[in-house]
This record gives sequence, structure tokens and C-alpha cells, in this order.
Amino acid sequence: MTYRAPITDILNTLRTVAPDGAFDEDLWGMIVGEAGKVAGDRLAPVNQSGDAVGAKLGESGVVVPEVYRDAYAAIREGGWMGLPFPEAFGGQDLPRVLALTVLEMFQAANLALGLAPLLSLGSIEALLAHGSPEQQAMYLPRLISGEWTGTMNLTEPQAGSDVGALKTKAVPNDDGSFAISGQKIYITWGEHNLADNIIHLVLARLPDAPPGTKGVSLFVCPRRLVNTDGSLGETNAVKCIGLENKIGIHGSPTCVMEYDGAKAWLVGEPNRGMAAMFTMMNSARVNVGVQGVGIADAAYQAALAYARDRKQGSSPGVDGMAPIVRHPDVQRMLLSMRAKALASRAICYACAAAADAVEMGDASAQAREDLLTPLAKAYGTDVGVEAAGLGVQVHGGMGFMNETLAAQLFRDARIGPIYEGTNGIQAIDLVGRKLATDGGEAMKALLGEVERSAEAARASNDAALAEAGRRLVAAVAAVGAATDWMLQAFKADRSKALYAATRYQAEASVVVGVHFLLQMAMQAAERGASEAGEYAQLAAFLAVEDLFDGDLAAVLEASALSAGAMGDSLVAG
Amino acid sequence: MTYRAPITDILNTLRTVAPDGAFDEDLWGMIVGEAGKVAGDRLAPVNQSGDAVGAKLGESGVVVPEVYRDAYAAIREGGWMGLPFPEAFGGQDLPRVLALTVLEMFQAANLALGLAPLLSLGSIEALLAHGSPEQQAMYLPRLISGEWTGTMNLTEPQAGSDVGALKTKAVPNDDGSFAISGQKIYITWGEHNLADNIIHLVLARLPDAPPGTKGVSLFVCPRRLVNTDGSLGETNAVKCIGLENKIGIHGSPTCVMEYDGAKAWLVGEPNRGMAAMFTMMNSARVNVGVQGVGIADAAYQAALAYARDRKQGSSPGVDGMAPIVRHPDVQRMLLSMRAKALASRAICYACAAAADAVEMGDASAQAREDLLTPLAKAYGTDVGVEAAGLGVQVHGGMGFMNETLAAQLFRDARIGPIYEGTNGIQAIDLVGRKLATDGGEAMKALLGEVERSAEAARASNDAALAEAGRRLVAAVAAVGAATDWMLQAFKADRSKALYAATRYQAEASVVVGVHFLLQMAMQAAERGASEAGEYAQLAAFLAVEDLFDGDLAAVLEASALSAGAMGDSLVAG
Repeated sequence: MTYRAPITDILNTLRTVAPDGAFDEDLWGMIVGEAGKVAGDRLAPVNQSGDAVGAKLGESGVVVPEVYRDAYAAIREGGWMGLPFPEAFGGQDLPRVLALTVLEMFQAANLALGLAPLLSLGSIEALLAHGSPEQQAMYLPRLISGEWTGTMNLTEPQAGSDVGALKTKAVPNDDGSFAISGQKIYITWGEHNLADNIIHLVLARLPDAPPGTKGVSLFVCPRRLVNTDGSLGETNAVKCIGLENKIGIHGSPTCVMEYDGAKAWLVGEPNRGMAAMFTMMNSARVNVGVQGVGIADAAYQAALAYARDRKQGSSPGVDGMAPIVRHPDVQRMLLSMRAKALASRAICYACAAAADAVEMGDASAQAREDLLTPLAKAYGTDVGVEAAGLGVQVHGGMGFMNETLAAQLFRDARIGPIYEGTNGIQAIDLVGRKLATDGGEAMKALLGEVERSAEAARASNDAALAEAGRRLVAAVAAVGAATDWMLQAFKADRSKALYAATRYQAEASVVVGVHFLLQMAMQAAERGASEAGEYAQLAAFLAVEDLFDGDLAAVLEASALSAGAMGDSLVAG
Repeated sequence: MTYRAPITDILNTLRTVAPDGAFDEDLWGMIVGEAGKVAGDRLAPVNQSGDAVGAKLGESGVVVPEVYRDAYAAIREGGWMGLPFPEAFGGQDLPRVLALTVLEMFQAANLALGLAPLLSLGSIEALLAHGSPEQQAMYLPRLISGEWTGTMNLTEPQAGSDVGALKTKAVPNDDGSFAISGQKIYITWGEHNLADNIIHLVLARLPDAPPGTKGVSLFVCPRRLVNTDGSLGETNAVKCIGLENKIGIHGSPTCVMEYDGAKAWLVGEPNRGMAAMFTMMNSARVNVGVQGVGIADAAYQAALAYARDRKQGSSPGVDGMAPIVRHPDVQRMLLSMRAKALASRAICYACAAAADAVEMGDASAQAREDLLTPLAKAYGTDVGVEAAGLGVQVHGGMGFMNETLAAQLFRDARIGPIYEGTNGIQAIDLVGRKLATDGGEAMKALLGEVERSAEAARASNDAALAEAGRRLVAAVAAVGAATDWMLQAFKADRSKALYAATRYQAEASVVVGVHFLLQMAMQAAERGASEAGEYAQLAAFLAVEDLFDGDLAAVLEASALSAGAMGDSLVAG
């Protein structure tokens, strides 16, 4: 059993969330189909074997599983890195949301390997937005072609979520370059043997930099220096000095990087490194959110195949032992995995589609992208962890054995809620920045959309649509009231709001997820597509299982009061 | 940071749930305290080192981490295996609930090693209940002393949850013994180098056995044959031919066992092996439930210590970077871990206490033990997985690194919901056997208790108690109505009931857990104990976070209908 890309679901999601008029059935269908083949035929087959071997640090540096070589070549040769980037640098100028589908499929098929292009995308975006024309000309074509890969170097031992605490130094050289010295940790694909060069984007402090985030600058630091004719020069003073031993993503080298006076060039303005990071944060976060979606989908596929194959116990209408897929509790788990994968996918795609809308000239979509970003990242990765856990459970004892894909997905999924801003930080971002900045305007606009599809579904003759709609009408009202509570709480007592932020984020995500599923169901019904019935039923299932049914604002208030009353007792040793 | 046994919590829980008059503060306090020292000082320090080494299968058989030798000696030398067993065989005739506290602490400190005594307990119980006097005399003293260990051999590749599908054969020898041939899988501590002998309890089929569970017999099969003078004779034809590579519990050898005409003796009546298994199932399940409790507690301790130590970001009233324990979202996670550990512990202990009540002559407590068993197993292990996940999350990036205890606990915890009957099977047992057998009488009696403590708490002057009580009054009514729905559904349409069984089990567990926490809080207040306030607040927190607030029966009905409508689409390839 290997992963097969869910082409129909992906296209249906795109159809629902793409900016008006952007969905191009023929072109997008072709691209999604081709990327799906690469994912299923080239990346997925080496997912488990790569995990078993893992990345290794040897005498000559980091070596990743040799089976990745051909798989990475498939990504590179297909030009898959370049989808959303300018043609001027070898890209294809296609929408972000389409590129996101490719990223989902690649990461679903092979998360450890899929992180290599993910990190390259971040470097490309940083250089596109902030690099000088010379830097762009030097690095972008070969990053976009996949000939080289990129990394992001933020974290240091004392500076994780708190990036401003970093200490790495950048001292000016005479030639306009800088010498970077310091240690960075948790650097994904920080070193490897699949590409000729690795382009590090590094946050560091200039000698006269003010403390905190206001004194952080961004630098580009190639592993091998690039001569003016484009040929590769000497190896730079940056190397991996240790690999982490992790719960999962064993094929992805997570490096401790040592910079020992490495030659680097300032990207953008001095002391504006954090701002540069922020410009790429939205896309990095949705890219990680879609990892969770992909893991959930892969876990669903593996669990369904196992449940159809594995015979245990009896079932009415079956002679002898029945496949466990006939057992109601197994079906419940499978449906939960599938419904959540669909709902979280739609949120992630809607987030990227909002970014596309901005690029297409709809400036008002920026607030929507900003708002959907924490939901996409947190809900997507939470769904990934939850679905991977259910996948293990469907497998029973086999699921605990590392030889099953289910076990690997369970281990791989767990990083999602942690990196690219923990899901708790997403909740702080949602409440403290996205809601507070515009007084909840973008959220209320989104909830207004939800309300309209809830009302439309409720009025439907289809029983499942009506059930989902009825529950969503109540739940969206509860989230609306909770939004008012949250705005008020954040003004009156910030920490009270923050106690309740994660719960609020989770409930808002389910409401938005059910909304998109309903939209997909109703649109499929309108065009007579065969998926309509299943989507409607899955929307009803998710609505019943997960929508909050009650006074959410009151629960948030009580929860914050209760937790707040005990906070000090935890602080005191 | 290593595990410290939560002596005060354990004793407070015992005080609340022990059979009337059984709690002996001095004796029990001494025993819990001493066992806690063994757990903290001897077992916990080798938890991570044992995990890093893992069990290995070499030329001369299975070798477990050498650091376990001293730790296992501490268990053996302290006589800790013998607590609940008859003095006649070297035991101490102490209550089961007290023995359960010891098991919790040992498994919290070191789950992989703690599984060795756990499996021995199962063998001892089987032989106590069904062994002949000769078998008891031959095996029990040295199993109870810990000189030998025991195993349970049920599972075969085609026979997991469906034990009746097993194929291992038992052919009579001329001397009254039997020759066992076949392969057993997932045999925990099936072979190791910490004890002189291993006593296998094996399910197999006699030549003339009827098919299914009615043709399964139980045998005792020592690894080394025992001479009539008690000395060890030749090695039996049973050995480990493979070790599983698992997500966690790496130090615990999970063996593929090959029986090649191994000499064994029938335990109990022919073809009554399943019944023999059932007699020990309750205690085995609560023993696994308490693993989850222990993991949750250990994860809480590790996360709290890390959160107090790790500095990131700022907090009002703190100069410079603040420890992350000051962040509201981190506090929320810690409180959730602690509240659930307490609630699930109380359910597990209450289950064992009911078994003690039966032994003390209260036959009516049997139905209570039977009812609490699936809740103890499923809720305990679910809490273990959830709390271990939160523990990883509190650690951020460090939590994904195998060097942290948090990461190990996350990996170790995942087996809990799978073995000793998956949690889905617990739900089937709860609904199909425990509720259906007595028409819900035992459940209604339990919910009556819950209702009384909810009413008492609601009437309290203490705000936290009143809040928890108010919510529990509503939730217990909802679970009561859901119980009626479930009884009705099980009669009318079994599969409908089974779609909703897991959700029902989960909601019932929270209701019972909050009830016990409230009892602990109110009793602590009565005797002026300083824990009263914290327990009340944790009860309120758990009530707000986890109690279902709405019409549960309607949700179960809708959920079952929704899942049922899609079931066939999953079955069809």
C-alpha cells in the first residue's frame, strides 16, 4: 500500500476555494494529475525505506538515504519547485494555491524528503521579496530549478519561539560581505548530498544592532561560494556538526549548523531581518499546515486498505471472519480521518487562494489570508496528528510496529504542531494580532460566509446537508459570540484571552472546515458530480462529531478563570 | 528530571475510593512511600538509558538492557510482586488497589521494564484461579518472589482481537503432558535474561477441539522444565525467533515465539481456556489502564520541570526572558495533563477497589468492577496518549528529540489504547456486555453516585466546587439519558449502538472522573487538607474543558446515523 494522490478531492477543493474565475479545470487538472503521479510513483515508494535508513553524519558530511536521490530528481526534473515563481527566474507564474496542492501531495507521499523543497521555497520567497537584483540573479534560477536547495536558519539553543533572543554575529568584511559566526539548531536539510549547493538564509546580529527582534538582520550564505561566472568556488565556513535523533522524519537531516566566520551577504536592510521573515511567514505556515492534511490523507488511505484486508471477528452477512472495515468503530475512525483531511485541506487551500487573490489585485483578501493562516497551520497539523493516531489504532498491534506506514506517519506527524510557530503561538497570533488588529472584522466577514452556507444547507432537501446546516447555524453563532468575548477579553485582560485562545482557534477551525465541506457538497450537487452525496454526509458527520454545541463564550470565560486561578501555583517551584 | 512518585495524590485517591474501612493510612502510606522510592530511585533512572539500548535478539537469545538488571532486582528483592497474593505462596494478602498503586508507580517510572512484572501478575492470577495444586506449588512461589517471570501467549498472526481464530496445537503426550506447536506473536517479555526461568501461559487447541473460542485450552509451558525437586531441568522447545521493531517500549522485548512440540500441561478444563482468560481480564485491563495514568503523571512532571526551566519570551512582572510556565497556553496544557491524570487514576483505583470489595464479601461490587473495567482501561490509556502529546508540545522542538523523556513517553504511551483489548473493544464490552447484561443497572447506580456528589458540590460555598458541580449535574443527566438511548439502540439495532459506543464510553469516563475528583476535593476539605483547593479547581477545570454540555443522546443518534449511512461505501473496494 502506497499513497495515491486524491486528485478528485483536490480539484473539488480548488474549485470551491480558488479566487473567482481562476480555476482552470484543464490546466490545473493536468498539473495536479502529473504531480500526483510523481508523488505516488516516485516519492511514496521510498518513504518507508528512507525512514528505515535515516540521515547520517559521516566523515564527509551529511548523507541522506540514497533512495531519495531518484525521488528528488523527479521533483527537480519536473520543474515542480517553480510553479508559483516568476518566469524571469525559470518559474511558471502559476497560482500559489496550485503550488500548495503539489506540496501537499509530495509531503503526503514522503514528508522527510518533501521538507527539502519546502525549505527551498522559503529561501526563494525571501530572496524574491528582499534580495538585491544581483542576489536574485545569482541564486534564484538554480534554487527554482531545484539544482540547489535552500535553508532557513533562525533557531538557536536559547532562541526558539523567541527569535529575538538570537546571538549569532555578523561582522562586516572589507569587501561588503559579512562574516557570520554562531550556532544554529534544528536546521532542516541544513546539509545533505542531493544538490551541488545549499543556500542558507541566516538571521544574525550586526555589531551595533539593538537588542531583541529589532536588531536582527537577514543574510544569504551559500555553502559553496559562487563565482561571478556562476561556477562554484571554495567551500564556505559553515557546516553541520551534529544531527538530531528525532521521533520521526528520520530521512530529513535536522542539523546543528556551525558558522565559523562564514562569508555572507546582507539581504534587505540592516536590522530588518524579522520583517523579511514575516513576509514569508504566511506561506511557510500554510505549507506546514498542508503537511498535516497530507499525513491525514495518507494515514486514511493506509488504514482503509488495512481495514479492508485484515480479517478479525464476524459481521452480519459475512461468512467466516469479516474484514475489520465492517466493524462500526473502525468505520467511525476512518470517516473521522477522511472528514478532517477534507476540512483541513479546504482551510489551507482557502488561505493560499486568498494570497492569490491579493496578487490578482484584491487587496482586501490580505486580511483573509492573514486570518486563515493560523487556522491552516494549527488545524492542519492537529488533524495530521489526530488522524495518524487513528490510523495506528485501526491497525491494532501492527500499527505500533515501525514496519507499517501507519507507525511512520504517527511519528512523522508529531513535528507539525511544533515547528513554524507552535500551535499555541498560532493561537496567540490569531487572537492577539489577527483579531485585535482589525477589531475582528476579517473574522466576522468569514463567519458571515459560514453563516450563509449554513443557512443554505439547512434549507436543503438533502437530509445530510440539512443536518450539517442546522448544526453549523448554531455553532457559527456560538463562535461569533465567542469572537466578541475574545475581543473584549483581549482588551480587558490579555492573559485571560490567551488562556482561551487555543480552544477558540480549534472551534473556529471546525466551523470554517464544515463550511467549506458544505460548499464543496453543494457545488458538487449543482453540477451533478457523484461526490456530492459523500461530501454532504461527511460534512454532517464532522458537524455532529466536532462542532461545539452550546455557549462557547461562557466556556471560554469559565476555562480562562479556572486556569488563571491555578496559574501561580504552577509557576512557584 | 526523573519521575517522583505522587505519594500524596495516590493516598488521597485511595482514601476516596477504597472499600469502606479498608484504608489504612499508616500501613498503606508506608507501602506507597517505599514503592515510590523504588520507582523514583531505581526504575526511573534507567528508563531513558534502557530505551536507548533496547532489547536485542542475539546468538544466545534475547538480551534486555543491562541497566534493567539492578532495577528488576529492586522489584524482586522488595517482594513487590507479591502484594495482592496469598501468604501461602509467599504473598502478602494485601488489597488489589494497593498493589495497583505500586504498578502505577513502577510503570510510570519505567514502562518497558514495568511490563515484566505486569505479565508475571497475569500468569500468577491464571495459575491461582485455574492451576492444579501441583502446578501452583511448582510455579507460584517463584513467580510471586520474582525469581521467575511469566508471560501470556494469546495472539497469532491471524488471531488478534479475535482470539478464537488461533491455530496453535496441543497434542497429548503419553505422560499426561502436551506437546505445543505453533507460533505466537507480540509476546511481551516472551524471552529475556533477567530471570532463571520464564513460565509461559499459552492458549492452544486440543486435537478434537471445536472451532472458535469454545475450542481453546490453557496450558502452562515453562521455558526450562522443572524437576520434581524444584531444580531446573532441560530447556523446553520454545524460543523467541524474532523481536518487533516498535514505536516505543524499546526495552521491552516483544517476541515472536516458536513452539516446536514444547512440553506443557493443561491448566483447568479442556476447551475452557477462554473462560480462564476472562477471569484475569478485569485485572489485566485495569493494570494497563494505570499505565496510561502513570505515563500522564510522568509526562506532567517532566513538562512542568521543563516549563519552569526553559525561558522564552516575556511575561508581566519578569525582567528579561520569562520561564515558559508563565505563558497561559503552557499553563493550560499542564493543568489539563494533571487534571486528567488525577481523574483517570481515580477510575482505575475505584475499579480495583471494587474487586477488593468483592473479595471482602460484597458480591454486589462485582458489577461495579465489571462496569469500571472498560472505562479504566480506555480512559486511562487515552489520557496517557493525550497527556504525553501535550508533554511533547510543552517541550516545543526539544519534545521531538528522542533524548527527552517527553519524547520517550509519547512513543511508549501509544501502545496502551491497543493492547489488552483495543479501546474500541472496550467500548463494545461496555455497551454490549456491561450495559446489556444488567439492563444498565450498574451504570445507573454509578451515575446515581455521580449525581449525588454533583449536587453536593453544586451546593457548596466554594466557587470552584459549585462550578464543577453545576456542570456535572447537567452532564450526568445527559449521560444518563444517553445510557437509556444506548440500551434501546443495542436492542433495536446493534450496529447503531456500536457506532456510538466509543463516544459514549469517553463521555461516561469524564463524568465519572470529575465525580471522583470532586469527592477527593470535598473529602480533603472536610479533613482540612491543603490539597482541597487545588483538587476543587482541577475538578472545575476538567468539568469546563471536557464535560459534554448538551443532548448527548441526540448526538449519539445523529453520529450513528451519519456513520451508518457511509459504512457500506467504505466496505466496497
